[in-house]
Amino acid sequence: MTTMQQIMLAKRPIGTPTKENFRFVETTIPEPKDGEVLIQTLYVSVDPYMRGRMEDVKSYVEPFKLNEVLTGGIVGKITRSKGDHLSEGDYVIGNLAWQEYSIAKESQVRKIDANLAPISSYLGVLGMPGLTAYFGMTEIGDPKENETVVVSGAAGAVGMIAGQIAKLKGAKVVGIAGSDEKIDYLKNKAGFDMAINYKTTDNIHQALKDACPDGVDVYFDNVGGTVSEAVYPLLNTFARIPQCGAISSYNKTGDDIGPRIHTYLIKSRVRIQGFIVGDYADQFQEGARELGKWLQEGKLTYEETINDGFENIPDSFLGLFAGNNIGKQLIRVGEE
Amino acid sequence: MTTMQQIMLAKRPIGTPTKENFRFVETTIPEPKDGEVLIQTLYVSVDPYMRGRMEDVKSYVEPFKLNEVLTGGIVGKITRSKGDHLSEGDYVIGNLAWQEYSIAKESQVRKIDANLAPISSYLGVLGMPGLTAYFGMTEIGDPKENETVVVSGAAGAVGMIAGQIAKLKGAKVVGIAGSDEKIDYLKNKAGFDMAINYKTTDNIHQALKDACPDGVDVYFDNVGGTVSEAVYPLLNTFARIPQCGAISSYNKTGDDIGPRIHTYLIKSRVRIQGFIVGDYADQFQEGARELGKWLQEGKLTYEETINDGFENIPDSFLGLFAGNNIGKQLIRVGEE
Repeated sequence: MTTMQQIMLAKRPIGTPTKENFRFVETTIPEPKDGEVLIQTLYVSVDPYMRGRMEDVKSYVEPFKLNEVLTGGIVGKITRSKGDHLSEGDYVIGNLAWQEYSIAKESQVRKIDANLAPISSYLGVLGMPGLTAYFGMTEIGDPKENETVVVSGAAGAVGMIAGQIAKLKGAKVVGIAGSDEKIDYLKNKAGFDMAINYKTTDNIHQALKDACPDGVDVYFDNVGGTVSEAVYPLLNTFARIPQCGAISSYNKTGDDIGPRIHTYLIKSRVRIQGFIVGDYADQFQEGARELGKWLQEGKLTYEETINDGFENIPDSFLGLFAGNNIGKQLIRVGEE
Repeated sequence: MTTMQQIMLAKRPIGTPTKENFRFVETTIPEPKDGEVLIQTLYVSVDPYMRGRMEDVKSYVEPFKLNEVLTGGIVGKITRSKGDHLSEGDYVIGNLAWQEYSIAKESQVRKIDANLAPISSYLGVLGMPGLTAYFGMTEIGDPKENETVVVSGAAGAVGMIAGQIAKLKGAKVVGIAGSDEKIDYLKNKAGFDMAINYKTTDNIHQALKDACPDGVDVYFDNVGGTVSEAVYPLLNTFARIPQCGAISSYNKTGDDIGPRIHTYLIKSRVRIQGFIVGDYADQFQEGARELGKWLQEGKLTYEETINDGFENIPDSFLGLFAGNNIGKQLIRVGEE
């Protein structure tokens, strides 16, 4: 095999992305030069933040370029090495192109240990989503024993870890998610004290009020929108909101409007802190060590939704906005 | 004279308060008992936060009670003392009733020094509004040299001090206010680098963009609403928002809606912190000392709008929401 598939951004989405925004291109598998390695793509990560990069607007990461190959978190295996440190057969993780094989300088990827944890987990609980949950919850949320923590998007890759970390800190944890399967997972596998299906609950605010009789001290927010607006009136004095995402707004066209929240913030002296995982880059070692320890001790569980086949990457990405995934959404492209 | 006037909450306001919400009552001047003092009211402070207390809702202070005398910050003179420490002729400040004379225990009021500063200033720059500005700006805003600070409600009692503190910290300061007289004061007396009249500017967002070519690092917000929404898109990475007030919403009935702000917060990793001055009670000494020092050194200026006559208290309060005042709004009730 000398050719491979890659996926380009064909068109910037307006509103909800569709398959038309992506274009598959066949190209020749490249050859590594000195200091480079050839990596076979095994797992591709799709993440909600990528929606933002598809627009041509200034943000914390560069926009994807039109008619260029998309990139994201990828775990792969080295199939040829012209490097000094990495050898054929090594598993690596990096921000690589959406294609079946990639060339990278050794410094662009990081070797991962398949004996310590499944290689896919380096894209989830031990990777960007896990660290996002870790720093958002510990550095901003900072829940104290017996405080009440609400997590939205609770069955997502970040939310399920964020909630479990709050449990480990002794808090009472209530999750909000969008299917009964997710609710079941949160309550019966991830150890959440309570979980609410916002899609089937008549009155999400009342359901939260019932679930949080002592109010809400930390609101780890992945979704924004009306779900968050059901939480704000329940915030206790000095509540903290790690603002991790706002997926409800990512595909909105035109105005995304809702009740102004200033008076809640003042009345309860709430702190909202927007953040991204990169803000804590100098603490990644610490975060990864802590998450790894909890995993090994059996104190932390996680879930992955794995679709098979390179051709299913766009659909898997689109599925994030339909809430199709429980836990980390991955696409398996090659066999380990 | 053995009788005096007092002002009760006659009716809870719905929307913008009117004179109908207040009732003047004539009553007998009370007699101090042992340990108490009789205080003649000299200056009455009216403040936007009182609007919240007129509603029957849980907040950081108890609601005013219907058909009871309203209370607030007052500077007065002791006309009779049955206390151990305070003497006739002493000036004091305290949270006292809206009436011409008050009885208080000695511990309920604090003696102020008329030689150090005008007694009215203890209700403004040296009192609650000054401390609010001080802690909001230094503890939450924390402007660095050459950063850009925007202050809304900039010509109010809090805003004008907040902006000047940011100047003292080496920041570039842009004020937003609602009359040309206020703009003139901010630019030519309070030393703001720029001030924008949001009522006469065609495009407040564009005016702010022009005034803040390097973006906004600190947004000290007293108003909320559309003015704030013109600032949010200009926020720099790691911007801070001391959320001091939201006066644009205090008299709103029904929905107060606007664009949701979550994505701004994430993109720029903004921190919003709602606060009230009482959160910093254990640092009041430090704050008052610092403000007093700046005043004495001529580094800080302030303005007061003083109306005369006890009968004008309700109108002066209502005027806060029409933006009638420059700086601290006071009512002079008695002569020093």
